[in-house]
Amino acid sequence: MKDLAKRFPQNPLLMPKDLVASRHELQIISLLNPGVFRFQGKIWLLVRVAESIAQKEGVIFFPVMNEMGQMEIIEVPLNDPDLVATDARIVNYKGLDYLTTVSHLRLLVSTDGIHFSEPETCEAALFGCGELERYGIEDCRVSQIGEDYYLTYTAVSENGVGVGLRVTRDWRQFEFKGMILPPHNKDVAIFETQIASKFYALHRPSSKEIGGNYIWLSESPDGLHWGNHKCLIKSRPGFWDSERVGAGAAPIRTPYGWLEIYHGANAAQQYCLGAFLMQLEDPAIVIARTNDPIMVPTEKYELSGFFGYVVFTNGHVVDGDQLTVYYGAADEFVCGAYFSINKILRAMGFGPLL
Amino acid sequence: MKDLAKRFPQNPLLMPKDLVASRHELQIISLLNPGVFRFQGKIWLLVRVAESIAQKEGVIFFPVMNEMGQMEIIEVPLNDPDLVATDARIVNYKGLDYLTTVSHLRLLVSTDGIHFSEPETCEAALFGCGELERYGIEDCRVSQIGEDYYLTYTAVSENGVGVGLRVTRDWRQFEFKGMILPPHNKDVAIFETQIASKFYALHRPSSKEIGGNYIWLSESPDGLHWGNHKCLIKSRPGFWDSERVGAGAAPIRTPYGWLEIYHGANAAQQYCLGAFLMQLEDPAIVIARTNDPIMVPTEKYELSGFFGYVVFTNGHVVDGDQLTVYYGAADEFVCGAYFSINKILRAMGFGPLL
Repeated sequence: MKDLAKRFPQNPLLMPKDLVASRHELQIISLLNPGVFRFQGKIWLLVRVAESIAQKEGVIFFPVMNEMGQMEIIEVPLNDPDLVATDARIVNYKGLDYLTTVSHLRLLVSTDGIHFSEPETCEAALFGCGELERYGIEDCRVSQIGEDYYLTYTAVSENGVGVGLRVTRDWRQFEFKGMILPPHNKDVAIFETQIASKFYALHRPSSKEIGGNYIWLSESPDGLHWGNHKCLIKSRPGFWDSERVGAGAAPIRTPYGWLEIYHGANAAQQYCLGAFLMQLEDPAIVIARTNDPIMVPTEKYELSGFFGYVVFTNGHVVDGDQLTVYYGAADEFVCGAYFSINKILRAMGFGPLL
Repeated sequence: MKDLAKRFPQNPLLMPKDLVASRHELQIISLLNPGVFRFQGKIWLLVRVAESIAQKEGVIFFPVMNEMGQMEIIEVPLNDPDLVATDARIVNYKGLDYLTTVSHLRLLVSTDGIHFSEPETCEAALFGCGELERYGIEDCRVSQIGEDYYLTYTAVSENGVGVGLRVTRDWRQFEFKGMILPPHNKDVAIFETQIASKFYALHRPSSKEIGGNYIWLSESPDGLHWGNHKCLIKSRPGFWDSERVGAGAAPIRTPYGWLEIYHGANAAQQYCLGAFLMQLEDPAIVIARTNDPIMVPTEKYELSGFFGYVVFTNGHVVDGDQLTVYYGAADEFVCGAYFSINKILRAMGFGPLL
């Protein structure tokens, strides 16, 4: 297995202690999975900030947004027989599922792509809004389409886990477009270029029975309403991506096809990155896919954290051959790594690009 | 619990032995869950026909459509340790789910709405087509929108369970519109009237974790691409519809609102019918819902069959106050029942209509 990533020596770029919690009664548990975009000549991260109440011994808390948009806390003793808490990220209490944290999205800006700080001129945080986002919003992809930025994010509530969309041009005012893909769905990356006047998006529905956690392609006339869904990339038994796969950020246009960086996980919930290539004219046709991951958790900050052995990306910037991937490490830290687009293509049997 | 249904004395209207299997090597296991529409002055059913291979002792078969559209058979000894067969409808073999039958849709026509026979002038059967329908197509709703009939059906394959759409005007030629809602989704009923130039549909996504089997509402500019999903009707702990709910056929316009007949099931998988009412101008607003079911399995043909204790509808016709519901009984028989729309509205505290 050949790891193609050149990690930033400055990793982790951001840790929970680097930011201030959104309310005084909360603490930041994790920073993770940033959306990435260029705006006004700078590089911006839209980091997922996962918060909870400061923990007491023997008790678990689930934070939930109430109908007034305020945080409510459900408190349960850890020895409650109705509590099933076997995963750091999700618990079941009296038959209902809850997240152990509530996430919002925080804007950070950088001139060098390495040192990030909170912006002075923009709305710095986006919170869940309405009854479909009561458990928070997560893992935002940012696609620039013309002058508009399309923000697709995981919207979580007791109704299920679906995909919300907000659109902005100035990062001050956001148009709320509602839930564009119903439960159970996440990992939505809208293509930044239309093909034959159609919008395209990758998404990752999950099946309760029959099927799995696969990457699908969808079409839209307007970026808001989606149809003609097709199954594109499946998990592969016996591979590093045997349990689930999901798209990263918007695909990168290359002469050989649309290049997509994706995450895959095995049954042990170990998350690596891979790549696949879609035909330029018809992205429903997958031309190639890496057999081995292009990035595997190896560093301490990737192996150990809120949820260890995870590298997960949903944001990058491109400069010629250089792909700068920002990623969540161990579901706790924000990190960066450089890739050569040529080398990724070569790993799939294509190239070199001139 | 007050059952508002007046069952046809002729029930069951159709049984597996009444039709001929689609291929000589197959047998019809069940007839169920018809879509219903009027065309050329007659009443038509689009019945789901579930077929399998004639069973041998000690062996289970899963029928699957191959890429050439031909039926392939997977044969597994019942004592195979990799086989999990605890449900009559679905089995798990080597970690993958299979249906025990493959369904197609069969057209039947009647002048009196009671005696149905195969038509002479139309395409009599619709089969699964393409890689998203390899395990068959099921439970079709037929919505008449202008001169067009929109057929929304459950499309099943190893990729998952989603919703396919075909459109026809003459019941001879069908336009295939692909999968309009990705897995896991079913029970889609498109409103037959647009509201403020928008198409609306009820649908039933299922959640793998967080959320449940709830009825959602969706909007579309063209009937093909769907967005702005909202959660409308949830299952109710302690009620007859505690485990799952799903829309029936297209809602019925009444002066008090859009009337929808829906199915609900409890944890024991007992399926009854209920009703709810949506606001005319904005169907995202639910005005009322029956606490008790309006129809409960009581007859022998409802209590006992391929999957007992089931009444399930996705088709009806309306004549003034009379609602004629066609329904699947015990996942094996096609039956009919009359309801008074006034009485259903009254059960929700509305009416009477003049």
